[in-house]
Amino acid sequence: MSRSNLVELAKRRGYFFQSAGAYGGVSGFYTYGPQGATLKDNVEDAWRERFGVQEGHREIDAPTVMPEAVFEASGHLDTFDDMLVACPECGASHRADHLIEDNTDIEEAESFAPEEIADLVAEHDIQCPNCGTELAGEPVEEFNLMFETNIGPGDASTGYLRPETAQGIFVEFPQLAEYARNQLPFGITQIGKAYRNEISPRNSLVRTREFTQAELEHFVDPNEDEPLIERVADVELTLYPAEKQAESEETEYVTRTVREAVDEGLVHEWVAYYLGVGKQWYESIGVDMDRFRFRQHLSGELAHYAADCWDAEGEIDGDWYELAGFAYRSDYDLSKHDEYSDDDFTVFKQYDESKVVERATVDPDMSYLGPEFGGGAADVAAELELLAERDRAAFEDEAVTVSVDGEEHEIPTEKTGFAVEEVKETGEQIMPHVIEPSIGVDRAVYTVLVHAYSEDEVEGEQRTRLALDPGVAPTFVGVFPLMDKDGMGELARELTDELRAEGLAATYDDSGNIGRRYRRQDEVGTPFCVTVDYDSLEDSEGQRASERPSGDEPRGYTVTLRERDSTEQVRVPVDDLPDLLADLREGETTFSELDAPAAEQ
Amino acid sequence: MSRSNLVELAKRRGYFFQSAGAYGGVSGFYTYGPQGATLKDNVEDAWRERFGVQEGHREIDAPTVMPEAVFEASGHLDTFDDMLVACPECGASHRADHLIEDNTDIEEAESFAPEEIADLVAEHDIQCPNCGTELAGEPVEEFNLMFETNIGPGDASTGYLRPETAQGIFVEFPQLAEYARNQLPFGITQIGKAYRNEISPRNSLVRTREFTQAELEHFVDPNEDEPLIERVADVELTLYPAEKQAESEETEYVTRTVREAVDEGLVHEWVAYYLGVGKQWYESIGVDMDRFRFRQHLSGELAHYAADCWDAEGEIDGDWYELAGFAYRSDYDLSKHDEYSDDDFTVFKQYDESKVVERATVDPDMSYLGPEFGGGAADVAAELELLAERDRAAFEDEAVTVSVDGEEHEIPTEKTGFAVEEVKETGEQIMPHVIEPSIGVDRAVYTVLVHAYSEDEVEGEQRTRLALDPGVAPTFVGVFPLMDKDGMGELARELTDELRAEGLAATYDDSGNIGRRYRRQDEVGTPFCVTVDYDSLEDSEGQRASERPSGDEPRGYTVTLRERDSTEQVRVPVDDLPDLLADLREGETTFSELDAPAAEQ
Repeated sequence: MSRSNLVELAKRRGYFFQSAGAYGGVSGFYTYGPQGATLKDNVEDAWRERFGVQEGHREIDAPTVMPEAVFEASGHLDTFDDMLVACPECGASHRADHLIEDNTDIEEAESFAPEEIADLVAEHDIQCPNCGTELAGEPVEEFNLMFETNIGPGDASTGYLRPETAQGIFVEFPQLAEYARNQLPFGITQIGKAYRNEISPRNSLVRTREFTQAELEHFVDPNEDEPLIERVADVELTLYPAEKQAESEETEYVTRTVREAVDEGLVHEWVAYYLGVGKQWYESIGVDMDRFRFRQHLSGELAHYAADCWDAEGEIDGDWYELAGFAYRSDYDLSKHDEYSDDDFTVFKQYDESKVVERATVDPDMSYLGPEFGGGAADVAAELELLAERDRAAFEDEAVTVSVDGEEHEIPTEKTGFAVEEVKETGEQIMPHVIEPSIGVDRAVYTVLVHAYSEDEVEGEQRTRLALDPGVAPTFVGVFPLMDKDGMGELARELTDELRAEGLAATYDDSGNIGRRYRRQDEVGTPFCVTVDYDSLEDSEGQRASERPSGDEPRGYTVTLRERDSTEQVRVPVDDLPDLLADLREGETTFSELDAPAAEQ
Repeated sequence: MSRSNLVELAKRRGYFFQSAGAYGGVSGFYTYGPQGATLKDNVEDAWRERFGVQEGHREIDAPTVMPEAVFEASGHLDTFDDMLVACPECGASHRADHLIEDNTDIEEAESFAPEEIADLVAEHDIQCPNCGTELAGEPVEEFNLMFETNIGPGDASTGYLRPETAQGIFVEFPQLAEYARNQLPFGITQIGKAYRNEISPRNSLVRTREFTQAELEHFVDPNEDEPLIERVADVELTLYPAEKQAESEETEYVTRTVREAVDEGLVHEWVAYYLGVGKQWYESIGVDMDRFRFRQHLSGELAHYAADCWDAEGEIDGDWYELAGFAYRSDYDLSKHDEYSDDDFTVFKQYDESKVVERATVDPDMSYLGPEFGGGAADVAAELELLAERDRAAFEDEAVTVSVDGEEHEIPTEKTGFAVEEVKETGEQIMPHVIEPSIGVDRAVYTVLVHAYSEDEVEGEQRTRLALDPGVAPTFVGVFPLMDKDGMGELARELTDELRAEGLAATYDDSGNIGRRYRRQDEVGTPFCVTVDYDSLEDSEGQRASERPSGDEPRGYTVTLRERDSTEQVRVPVDDLPDLLADLREGETTFSELDAPAAEQ
């Protein structure tokens, strides 16, 4: 299929469209229409269930605007840049590394330095895609991707729209550890908006300036905690390791179960665990597993803090796009905030049994140091303490030498009060390591739509179909009267209300012939349609809504139930419908297990 | 209770706390901890159900960053200001109208002009709350409350963080009307972040710089559509009309049902309908109806576009706070966007029967006008057309006079081709009116917490209790073993997993004595606790988890179920527990309807 078909369908059917079209639109900003917002909600709920509830992790909700100090510590202020080249003629801004990728065989140009990119621009005679001007010789500059704003009036402080939801978790670690009663491991999730001021947004929902992230930060003791691999041990992963990417022209995958990937040392055990969870989740929301892989970061691509990182990638029109990153972030983020802030980002880990350890201490004779060093006495004492911790042997001689402000001082060892004591330690401060599955919600939604899109022929007629999974489809069932007359409309509207009350997303439609209504729901991605027809009317005779006793009396009539994908129909009693549909949604029964197809209408 | 008690509890128990505390915090930004984020989720879901699903409205999801053009049209760029006065000594910024309210008997100082406020500051010798410097003579200035940022690099365009979610709906009206097949009425909802760069954030979650709004824009035909008042006709409203606010020192309310309020003309019918819905919703999430009212906007307070507006208000520590606005916004927003953009913000409304109307037209003889007026002929023809629409009588004489660029021209009537025709009109373009219930989610959450907070005494011991409604409580049931030994811990952990699988938010706790665990859950607001004790063990003998056949075999043992508010306990069979708890959550049964209290433990 062509991507533009989907984008057109998405706009027409209420999935998504570029925002503020009345004012010409703004690149990189999209609005989800009624179908799209509900699909996105369903995808988010599925994520909460799989990564939160089932894993026992808890969710928080932090602001999207954060103070500058956070991003000084996280490194975003210095390094969250893309390479920008501006056209000297038309003034258009371009992402320089993308120009290289689009015009040469080079992939992952992001890992080159700006000067190298500038050289490549010249070498390949790259022109402005907007006006055709040669860009050789134009400077390639780093452009920080954070949206900046001012907080408060007057001498305002600088704030940034968060470039990832993760920092909202890291920066609150001291508080969150308290909720976890300082017990590792624990995990915190967050779903929310994040922002990147992209130089040139593109590919619809893939590269936008405002997007939704679903992130989990799992804090673990790197020395003791291990993932419960057995929970996902048999999940098969399509892996594209760094060495395979380097060594061959052909794309060659390695297929391993989570257990095998860990045992062979292919993937870090914590990362492998979440690749298993991730694969299960993407499959459950309807991403095509034949168009899905995990690609390991190349060494040049790997963030400086990441020990191992694999991206989930989805295929669209022959290209592969990042859907998620599964990174072992070590203690990078917590140690940065520990360093930059006044708070403590460690937890106290109690030993199973207390340990007795030797500790070297000093207790300097200040009546000697005072007269000897005056105002410098305290500094000398502090240096003695450090020396005792560092080098006990230094105290074996008669005198000890310490250096204060570049000046050396000799102190008689007997005046230092040096001693080695045995102390009982009940535990230690540990800085947790972090495993981070970071998922782009918009890209998940977009990939689900692309993979669900198809065109086929039904009874000689072309149809467009979104084969959305019943678990996430925004409209689950369409309810139609064959025609809105003789009471069929009334029965169908009543049925719609009843299904809604049962928590099923039902829509009523009586406009146009029945074939056209099926086509419409096929295109919206509605998995099932129910039609009330003359047979229903006959069955229900004498018990029309207004005449029936109220309450849960059986209605007794039958309707046709039609499946989107097979276009087959079966006749089912209306009283069974809510339970039947709920089972179909949960995957507890399949359409083909139902009765034989009903007669053609 | 004192507000600070709640704020302290909120931080300690994971409801909310000021963000980025490790860096000294930033005024007006809060993070919801694990309990708070889940409570907020539950409140949002309840809103979606009541204002969306039950009313048949659909949800969208628009960006939080929007282009400047939108806010030029909406008026926010010009008028979304607060009054700022800065201290000449310490430089602190203050909201000038709040200084007046805090230091005088004047209420709603917001409705005064900046110069009047400056006069009042001088008149009342108001000092800087920060350093005590006299502020008399300092300028009072308008400060725009939108956060500004740049979109894209280079010659960037200006964007703003949306000050309300509403504009994301209004600006997409043309597209949304298409989804509704141009049929009025229809409603669009949105839940999301909105931002106001408050001069002085205060009162915890009440006045923050980043917050969550839940808004509904209900688009109606002002001439034809009417609310289904009967759906909420009997809901009783505590009303505080504008005239009552003006006329007396005493606060005097008027209690009316929705039906009465409409019949008496007290409240606009569409607004009254949503006051009914709103009251039901606030009551359902646990806002105390004795501390809740609807206050009509005073005329000076009313936005220029609003025909009628009532705020929902909640009482905290004797003060009343706005929780929501219910406004009849007329066609103000759509007409502004219609005017400022190139799109059409009307819908075509088909008449039930086509109408035949007379229309006056001209068909000027250009072979006369051309030679006579040269290049001005087209302008003259256009003026003739306007004149025919405006004033048919002008064509009754032999000659017609039109004015082009200040010059008068006389044209023989016979050369104008004037005629009156009958035309059939099948419908007309209508600009819908809008009713907007706009709800602050954070204030709802905060009020629910404040109204749920109490301190009482249980068996001579002080306890703090959050009496959260079972429908929204983030933790629904605590599961404890009496002690973690003799297999009680195992049974309790198993039970926790089982309850979670049934969709009940369960937490396991075995630390400290049972009384302490009850106190902890009382403070978190957990409505029910279940304890597995020695009696349970005896009942379950011979059928411990590991020995039992797998599947849904009955377990047969009993546990105690304890209610937070009454502190009473009953003994119930563990196999009944999931259904029983689900019924308690949905309000389908009450605790007091269960068996007689169990023996004291």
